[in-house]
Amino acid sequence: MKTDPRQTLIAAARHFYQQGWMLGTAGNLSAKINDGSFWITASGRNKGQLNSGDFIRIAANGKVVEKPNCEVHPSAETSIHQVIYSLFPQAQACYHVHAIEANLVSRFTDEDTLTLPPLEMLKGLGVREENPKVAISLFANHLDVLRIAGDIRKRFQTVTPSVNVLLIRDHGLTAWASSTEEAFNYVEIADYIFRYMVAAWKISI
Amino acid sequence: MKTDPRQTLIAAARHFYQQGWMLGTAGNLSAKINDGSFWITASGRNKGQLNSGDFIRIAANGKVVEKPNCEVHPSAETSIHQVIYSLFPQAQACYHVHAIEANLVSRFTDEDTLTLPPLEMLKGLGVREENPKVAISLFANHLDVLRIAGDIRKRFQTVTPSVNVLLIRDHGLTAWASSTEEAFNYVEIADYIFRYMVAAWKISI
Amino acid sequence: MKTDPRQTLIAAARHFYQQGWMLGTAGNLSAKINDGSFWITASGRNKGQLNSGDFIRIAANGKVVEKPNCEVHPSAETSIHQVIYSLFPQAQACYHVHAIEANLVSRFTDEDTLTLPPLEMLKGLGVREENPKVAISLFANHLDVLRIAGDIRKRFQTVTPSVNVLLIRDHGLTAWASSTEEAFNYVEIADYIFRYMVAAWKISI
Amino acid sequence: MKTDPRQTLIAAARHFYQQGWMLGTAGNLSAKINDGSFWITASGRNKGQLNSGDFIRIAANGKVVEKPNCEVHPSAETSIHQVIYSLFPQAQACYHVHAIEANLVSRFTDEDTLTLPPLEMLKGLGVREENPKVAISLFANHLDVLRIAGDIRKRFQTVTPSVNVLLIRDHGLTAWASSTEEAFNYVEIADYIFRYMVAAWKISI
Repeated sequence: MKTDPRQTLIAAARHFYQQGWMLGTAGNLSAKINDGSFWITASGRNKGQLNSGDFIRIAANGKVVEKPNCEVHPSAETSIHQVIYSLFPQAQACYHVHAIEANLVSRFTDEDTLTLPPLEMLKGLGVREENPKVAISLFANHLDVLRIAGDIRKRFQTVTPSVNVLLIRDHGLTAWASSTEEAFNYVEIADYIFRYMVAAWKISI
Repeated sequence: MKTDPRQTLIAAARHFYQQGWMLGTAGNLSAKINDGSFWITASGRNKGQLNSGDFIRIAANGKVVEKPNCEVHPSAETSIHQVIYSLFPQAQACYHVHAIEANLVSRFTDEDTLTLPPLEMLKGLGVREENPKVAISLFANHLDVLRIAGDIRKRFQTVTPSVNVLLIRDHGLTAWASSTEEAFNYVEIADYIFRYMVAAWKISI
Repeated sequence: MKTDPRQTLIAAARHFYQQGWMLGTAGNLSAKINDGSFWITASGRNKGQLNSGDFIRIAANGKVVEKPNCEVHPSAETSIHQVIYSLFPQAQACYHVHAIEANLVSRFTDEDTLTLPPLEMLKGLGVREENPKVAISLFANHLDVLRIAGDIRKRFQTVTPSVNVLLIRDHGLTAWASSTEEAFNYVEIADYIFRYMVAAWKISI
Repeated sequence: MKTDPRQTLIAAARHFYQQGWMLGTAGNLSAKINDGSFWITASGRNKGQLNSGDFIRIAANGKVVEKPNCEVHPSAETSIHQVIYSLFPQAQACYHVHAIEANLVSRFTDEDTLTLPPLEMLKGLGVREENPKVAISLFANHLDVLRIAGDIRKRFQTVTPSVNVLLIRDHGLTAWASSTEEAFNYVEIADYIFRYMVAAWKISI
């Protein structure tokens, strides 16, 4: 991971915004640097037009270690990124977006996992099986984000997720990976699979 | 609010046009200036290609106070903007667009309010509750726009809307806010929620 | 109408192509000049990348009067444009595109007209009524385009269409207007209404 | 076919990526050169940002004959391209993309062909009939791509496909043509038809 990932995060956020996944300032992206801290998007910024002043650097313990000026505040969901980096030391980037289809599929089941269809695209999430059966983890949404972060930590301490993507009901998806490029691909692939699922559900196939 | 908001309105209109929300010259955007008057898009212009000559300045009492040439006419829906600024003195911008999903959800109920789903995105409209229950105001469409404006004034004089967005049936959505940036975000978020609602209705979740 | 409308047609075709309405070289656009002849897109060209050599000029009687080189051939559907200009002398532009929703709504009825929903957007097609009831003309598709053109001529000689748009089943929409700008708006508005109708049909509202 | 088709493939891949057909590095494009070998996209690259170093040249017998550096590997699906060029000597380009609707329609039937609707757009695939009845070939997906390639070879050695497009279930579409321009058009038209079919299925028309 190069020292400063902010230009990469700005480009990813602009692309995700244009796809409709970060509308109305929603969502947050982060990437780790060598010392274990991570840069994360500040709260309340238009994700289609970020600049390098719209980020805050957070230590592994959650403390703010660098911010460009006093007007920026860390995303309310920083605690989720912190939990992901803590659970999965190989993770170098963590992307959280609010795609509509992610919210729709989060209502397809009351269980805490959602079975994915056996699409070839699963290969892009690292699943290489004939007719794969993969399930993704679902978490309840809460006004108190620390509660969501706690639920994720608790479950993933005992259950290893089969893919590097999770869903928060009525809220959005979070993907993590060992590089920003891979995290970007995971978001695209997850959204693709959720759009397939919504369309397939409509036509009962 | 800076003195002349026209460049901001031109950029917002171009973006909304590209999203399919201002097709065929539909919709109108306005923003207030310091003296209490507001600039509003002229009638019949392609909203993807506005220039500063495509706006008219209207006093708080509805009179035209400035227009670049004799060929521009105020939008037929100026009276709705006037009512919004009169009802909500803190409003600095008012955006009205014709998104398809806004029209579709306006048919989901015969009541004069429409309940929104408890999505995380509601936070962007200022709703900060666990499992929020929010309803948006619906108004009937009329050929005579003054009648719509009168209905809005009458209802909002006695009922305070829970979010800064309203729907006119078969017509479109109107959002207002204390800045052009916030009004832009409200339009994006409202459209997001309506698209979710149309998709959720289709699949009965 | 300015003497040479080809740059305007090139820009319109590029935009329509980007909307998915002129894929795989489908569709054709034309505009009249002062002497009563019209420029029309040549057959088999990528509509996203036209240049001025990709047009042919056709006299009111259907004869080719100008073509940039021997390799261009008039669109197979030139006869439909010719009929429109002959029936409606005020028409200065005629745009034919293959939008998916136009094909879908053409299957909503077996009648030869299709009722449109009472959307505010109808104002952009010139309909100014309270709760308007408007129907659009539907024609059968045929391999032999002359047969389609003949059907249009025959029906519109006795029945005046209520809006300047018609549908050919399983094929696409045709809009005509007194300027290229207006024809462009009519295509946008017709597609908007058809997309509304497809979505409304799905959810039975 | 010009000697080096890589710039054409780069532009096609960027366009297909933007349509959502090559997300997360999915899909692969190839084009033949005069000596019978073909250039194909390397595995694992972002298809929206290819450069000429992201291709490998493969001989008609499947051997790698040229690669820009040691880090690039041929697409896992090279064997399918090889079979297509072997079966159809006139084919100069072969495009494989992962459009969502291609996956959805692949579930509309358990048979090994899928009937297409009689749309005018079929003309762009070379079908010129009144009310055409055309079926497209469907193949099962397998983790082992050689098995898919073998199935295609076996079936097309005895049955000539009616159009130059095939579907692999849950995976994507493959189109081939006598030029890169035509292969591009075939992909666009096939996707158009599949999107029509998904929408028509939803509304039971």
